[in-house]
Amino acid sequence: MRNILVTLKYDGKYYHGWQIQKNAVTVQETFQNGLKSTLGDLPDIKGCSRTDSGVHANMYCLNFHTEHKIPCERLIYALNSRLPKSMAVINAEEVADDFHARYSCKGKEYIYKIWNNRIREPFLDGYAFHYWYGLDIDKMNEACQYFMGRHDFTSFCTVDNHRPKGDFHRTITDLHVDKNGDLVTVTVSADGFLYNMVRIIVGTLIGVSEGKFKPSDMEYIIRSCDRTKAGVTAQPEGLYLNKVIY
Amino acid sequence: MRNILVTLKYDGKYYHGWQIQKNAVTVQETFQNGLKSTLGDLPDIKGCSRTDSGVHANMYCLNFHTEHKIPCERLIYALNSRLPKSMAVINAEEVADDFHARYSCKGKEYIYKIWNNRIREPFLDGYAFHYWYGLDIDKMNEACQYFMGRHDFTSFCTVDNHRPKGDFHRTITDLHVDKNGDLVTVTVSADGFLYNMVRIIVGTLIGVSEGKFKPSDMEYIIRSCDRTKAGVTAQPEGLYLNKVIY
Repeated sequence: MRNILVTLKYDGKYYHGWQIQKNAVTVQETFQNGLKSTLGDLPDIKGCSRTDSGVHANMYCLNFHTEHKIPCERLIYALNSRLPKSMAVINAEEVADDFHARYSCKGKEYIYKIWNNRIREPFLDGYAFHYWYGLDIDKMNEACQYFMGRHDFTSFCTVDNHRPKGDFHRTITDLHVDKNGDLVTVTVSADGFLYNMVRIIVGTLIGVSEGKFKPSDMEYIIRSCDRTKAGVTAQPEGLYLNKVIY
Repeated sequence: MRNILVTLKYDGKYYHGWQIQKNAVTVQETFQNGLKSTLGDLPDIKGCSRTDSGVHANMYCLNFHTEHKIPCERLIYALNSRLPKSMAVINAEEVADDFHARYSCKGKEYIYKIWNNRIREPFLDGYAFHYWYGLDIDKMNEACQYFMGRHDFTSFCTVDNHRPKGDFHRTITDLHVDKNGDLVTVTVSADGFLYNMVRIIVGTLIGVSEGKFKPSDMEYIIRSCDRTKAGVTAQPEGLYLNKVIY
């Protein structure tokens, strides 16, 4: 059996997230349809993570086992001809038999885009969160420092009874805010992420800019392990899974 | 009567061009609906040009006369709250009574975006022309030189019996091709443009890269005043009206 790792890019505007759902078009279902039509049968697909409805991916990894002999290079083009234009296979390669897109993952990077101008940007509708008021980038970056390292991030996780409980410790290796003209980007890397973790961090950083929190409040909020102490969950459309590290 | 100049940005993916049509949603109609709802009545709107279906505008100018006393700054936000997210009013200002968005225009700049990679870019679907094969940027730029200055551009104009015949001379002040990673951008400035002129120039420059034409063939093609001598009309989705000069 060959084990094939596929790297995908997709515009989340058109999908209700990764995972197959009844009554909603998802990335997984759409990809599966293209894969089945290419290979003739449908292998079990392992995705690197769930992404929420409206969330984008510059890099999303998945793997599957197959007996099919199609060369990886040809698989890329065969799949792309069968997939909608809102997604693209950017790579396909053979990996070790025990490779698993989710369990072999060592870390991920997300970016969150904010269009920071009173006037909206039509070309970023669905691709960045539109925030009217001036953002205090320095204050936000000051707050970022408190997130660095290994912490229990329960305060930055949406309670979801459908997801397994477990260890809420994660290690954040990078968190910073950049401003390029009117486009503000939050970048965050970690060994793993809890449900809605990036969106709650971003909502809390915006709260810092708004004066709802002081940068130093982050320490207490993290330590409290209480979701109600952190800021709001930022809207999904600014979020991009940017890198998956194996 | 106040004469108001409005600058608009719009995502052409959602519109059948600027001009009002039966049975198709256009930018003009959509803007008029927002303006009527803001001012209470509908003034006559003069647009700076027609744009084709699927063509975008980073800057589109229009003007209208009104007795309404709303300050220009407030008009921007009032209009944006009434317009769809695929367009935005980025400026509004009072101008001299005889100003006309079309007739007062001294020149325009268009850009044409080409995604030049065998693998498509999902986030540029509808925002750049996807061209698979390697483009010879140097050769294209060599061809560009022949377009500079004042010429009869009949060879680069789609015959359209619905448009007034007239002088086909235009003065091109800039035409060049840039490459930034996999994104190739053609920039062209002129005192005015004929119907489909930019798209035919781009189609012809791609023909130069493909070896269908030599760069020096441009001289003969322009002189022939014969549309059949030039290249194909490039697809609309890569085209952006980028600047309007008064």
